[in-house]
Amino acid sequence: MELNSCFKINQIKIAMSPITFGVAQLNPVIGDLIGNCDRLLTAIQEFAAKGVSLVITPELSVCGYPPRDLLMSQQFVSDIEMAIADLAGKIPPDIAVIIGTVVPNPDAAQVGGKPLFNSAALLQDGKIKQVFHKRLLPTYDVFDEDRYFAVGNGSQVFTLNFKNGDALRIGVTICEDIWNDQKFWDKRNYADDPVAELAQNHALDLLINLSASPYAVDKQKLRESMLSHSAIVHNLPLIYANQVGANDDLIFDGRSMAFNRDGKTIACGKSFEEDLLIINFEEPPINPDYSGYESDEAEIFAALVLGVRDYVQKCRFKQVVIGLSGGIDSALVAAIAAEAIGSENVLGVLMPSPYSSDHSITDAIALAKNLGIATQTIPIQPMMTAFESSLDALFTGRASDVTEENLQSRIRGSLLMAISNKFGNLLLSTGNKSEISVGYCTLYGDMNGGLSAIADVPKTRVFSICEWLNGTNSKLAIKSKIGQDNSEIIPVNIITKPPSAELKPDQLDQDSLPPYHILDDILDKLIHRHFSAGEIIAAGHHDRLIVERVVKLVKIAEFKRRQAAPGLKITDRAFGSGWRMPIASKVTP
Amino acid sequence: MELNSCFKINQIKIAMSPITFGVAQLNPVIGDLIGNCDRLLTAIQEFAAKGVSLVITPELSVCGYPPRDLLMSQQFVSDIEMAIADLAGKIPPDIAVIIGTVVPNPDAAQVGGKPLFNSAALLQDGKIKQVFHKRLLPTYDVFDEDRYFAVGNGSQVFTLNFKNGDALRIGVTICEDIWNDQKFWDKRNYADDPVAELAQNHALDLLINLSASPYAVDKQKLRESMLSHSAIVHNLPLIYANQVGANDDLIFDGRSMAFNRDGKTIACGKSFEEDLLIINFEEPPINPDYSGYESDEAEIFAALVLGVRDYVQKCRFKQVVIGLSGGIDSALVAAIAAEAIGSENVLGVLMPSPYSSDHSITDAIALAKNLGIATQTIPIQPMMTAFESSLDALFTGRASDVTEENLQSRIRGSLLMAISNKFGNLLLSTGNKSEISVGYCTLYGDMNGGLSAIADVPKTRVFSICEWLNGTNSKLAIKSKIGQDNSEIIPVNIITKPPSAELKPDQLDQDSLPPYHILDDILDKLIHRHFSAGEIIAAGHHDRLIVERVVKLVKIAEFKRRQAAPGLKITDRAFGSGWRMPIASKVTP
Repeated sequence: MELNSCFKINQIKIAMSPITFGVAQLNPVIGDLIGNCDRLLTAIQEFAAKGVSLVITPELSVCGYPPRDLLMSQQFVSDIEMAIADLAGKIPPDIAVIIGTVVPNPDAAQVGGKPLFNSAALLQDGKIKQVFHKRLLPTYDVFDEDRYFAVGNGSQVFTLNFKNGDALRIGVTICEDIWNDQKFWDKRNYADDPVAELAQNHALDLLINLSASPYAVDKQKLRESMLSHSAIVHNLPLIYANQVGANDDLIFDGRSMAFNRDGKTIACGKSFEEDLLIINFEEPPINPDYSGYESDEAEIFAALVLGVRDYVQKCRFKQVVIGLSGGIDSALVAAIAAEAIGSENVLGVLMPSPYSSDHSITDAIALAKNLGIATQTIPIQPMMTAFESSLDALFTGRASDVTEENLQSRIRGSLLMAISNKFGNLLLSTGNKSEISVGYCTLYGDMNGGLSAIADVPKTRVFSICEWLNGTNSKLAIKSKIGQDNSEIIPVNIITKPPSAELKPDQLDQDSLPPYHILDDILDKLIHRHFSAGEIIAAGHHDRLIVERVVKLVKIAEFKRRQAAPGLKITDRAFGSGWRMPIASKVTP
Repeated sequence: MELNSCFKINQIKIAMSPITFGVAQLNPVIGDLIGNCDRLLTAIQEFAAKGVSLVITPELSVCGYPPRDLLMSQQFVSDIEMAIADLAGKIPPDIAVIIGTVVPNPDAAQVGGKPLFNSAALLQDGKIKQVFHKRLLPTYDVFDEDRYFAVGNGSQVFTLNFKNGDALRIGVTICEDIWNDQKFWDKRNYADDPVAELAQNHALDLLINLSASPYAVDKQKLRESMLSHSAIVHNLPLIYANQVGANDDLIFDGRSMAFNRDGKTIACGKSFEEDLLIINFEEPPINPDYSGYESDEAEIFAALVLGVRDYVQKCRFKQVVIGLSGGIDSALVAAIAAEAIGSENVLGVLMPSPYSSDHSITDAIALAKNLGIATQTIPIQPMMTAFESSLDALFTGRASDVTEENLQSRIRGSLLMAISNKFGNLLLSTGNKSEISVGYCTLYGDMNGGLSAIADVPKTRVFSICEWLNGTNSKLAIKSKIGQDNSEIIPVNIITKPPSAELKPDQLDQDSLPPYHILDDILDKLIHRHFSAGEIIAAGHHDRLIVERVVKLVKIAEFKRRQAAPGLKITDRAFGSGWRMPIASKVTP
């Protein structure tokens, strides 16, 4: 019998037919315990019908990740406990489920400590048989797990018994627990390695990991090599179950995976989609390109589409409204929105001023036509005149400056919000990461919106995504609408013309900012690589004065970012919940 | 010799003249290492001139608290190390200094862990003699210390030697370290008690605590009883050095204190002001009312005055602008601002609409006269007409609704921002906590501003503060301006008339919201006491439908609060950095 030989390291007898595992890669709504458990139960039943022995869910799948301060409500916690007990009672016989949930920390009342554990519960035979607690609690970037959770203690191992007397010893880890291997990382965030301890101290047959690992560019490659490394180092098959779906600023990409003890990937869940993944370790490794996209641009576009769709739907909107300036940022956001919720649910609003170029109108109209979205045009001159007349006496003798530019932006922002209020559609903000970094945007103006769709996309990447969009043969709803895969979505003139805010005559972005390829490189070093101004200058590629000016602009713009809409995160460091800077500060350069 | 008998528990010989300690209760600017160290050095020199033996500073006094993600810059950390080494070289002989700073964690690179310690350094003889690390790292409310700091290890004790051979054994704790006494707290946040361990394992003569403890109503009483308890339980004199000054949303109230071994307060620093406090444990206990205010209202007013002044000045503004509606919220904010930065630096802007009552104008003018602030009046009808005409075609057939109300608010918000942009004064937002809780405010309208001055003050408290303000004999700059201590600041009609947003004819707040005393009680239970809707209803004071509606409104308004200006925190739970709720969520009621 060579079946299930993958588990034979411990010489445990294994059933004749292959054991299969299921990963319920689901998209939970934060806090929707009833809805989430309903979908979990349906998935479990489906797996049971297919003979799956053990189902693994992502981290905190009962309440969705991240529940944030909802966990501070005792009612919410006891509702979670009731929901999971109820779910345990409903699961079919002959299937076991490892599900992500919270468990109260009994020590909290006795000796002190955080009130909860971030846990996995084993549901079997109609009840909660065992719980396992997360040990490594991330507090970097967007994570605040020490705010709610105690460091886990107790066993992380259980035995899955089969009717014929066979058994598998399974080690249970939760997300961060598996991200601290001594050999893999140059620098470790924790002294402990729960995986190594599990593997060394127990004769395990399988390692599982329940995750809610947010998407970032290049992260899947890192996950794969890290997880594969763990499988090899510990000579253990490994199943990684990741959440999918977007919750506010965070996009979870799914891509649950299984590795055999040689570190070869033998299964991978869909990217940016729900999936019920069945894993059979007898199967051969899969092509390493299984979850890939043709380019980073393609992957980012898919991430942002999910981010917009989930925010719109989870906030119970149906339609969105976008200000179309004829520029590339709003063009990309419109394309993302049309792909996410259907072009019939996207309204583009053109708000020309006397400073608007002719092409700003024609380009926006051409874009709307390509996407099949409706437009409205509302010239802003009447409001400009009204504001200017009303402020005329007070502003007498003062030159026109950024005040008047901001007013135009705020008139547009107010018009868009009026449309949002009247028709109940969500306003999407269209600012890119480069301009939000340096504050080249107007608070209460173009920054208005419920969601900032491309807030974490640098301007140079906005260009490259639009270029990819025009050239790709990928299956996209907005392309099939036109009928040709490789047809132009973003009018070429929008890509080729020099960017301009068009808030005064002949204005160009490059009058106020360094060229975007220079700006974005400086910002990358400053934001993602934590370089100081001095280190960026010392790296030798940029002019000292430009670097110092950019660093100063980034600092000064903090007050704007504090009031920005949530922005979809696609990098390792986005503005928003993972960016916590003081405003009133004075940092010596 | 009975001098310094307070230290004789350990039979240590003590010098003949009393030993004195200094607390440098200073107001740092976050990140301003040069400025902060200059002020520290001046304070140390002043203490030295008065024969003080040991100076104690608040927590992280080199960089100011909280430095937040500035600590993620290696350059910033090494600048702190240089600044403190430089300061150490400059301190006078014969004085020792315990100063709050950060220290790199050597284990981080070796075995893994957070990169820094939150530490105290002993500066003596021109160098850093010893460092002590904080052990309890708060992660609740506004605190994120696990994001940056490792749990401290190593000694927390040093010996202060005197020339005559005498010596004091001193235990060093940092802020949270002292907030976990087993007997004092019903529920503890940590299993460890560093103070008890110190006191039990070392023959200490004195306990010191470096703090950055933010202000909240009723907190000083708690601190006093808690610190007094610690002194008594461990039979040790205790010095608590707290930061003063506001940094963004957080107001630090100072009020550093010293307790003798009987738990009696023998010294207290000023409230909401810098102070160089000299402590001599030979002196008798002071009156328990030393740091008190005549009422919570008086104390909150002082806190908000400091909060506004520091935000304005630390952001390098000189003047502020406020929209004056004739209502009580803007009246209170104008009074706070006038007290904080001088009435000559406050501009009130009246922006009447056709729905504005006559008294809204006359009341606002009367207020401005009482405060001595300048006003400008800009009617908004022309902008209303322009927007309505421009949107007329699109809105055809749709009834007037909240859209038109929000537009008025957004016109006003845009006018105020135009004035802020043109004249460079900071816009103060005037929303109170009750309306921000339930979303009775307009995003990009009346929510506009760099700082939300009364965002953590419930409406009922806004009334009581205004009543106190009118009746008090406290020394206030805005009162002395009028020349009479007990003269009316807030025109009585502003206090007595029913609150109204005046966004449509005959509108009153109470048409949309429950009476404020009911609303505020429900909000208090929901926000501060973590009650669920069911628990509030079960408490029996409120109608089920009203409670359910309020709870729902609070949830729905999350998207507005996410984009709100920083609000000055005066309670144990404010919106802002300590309130981390998901937006796209569905919590089963």
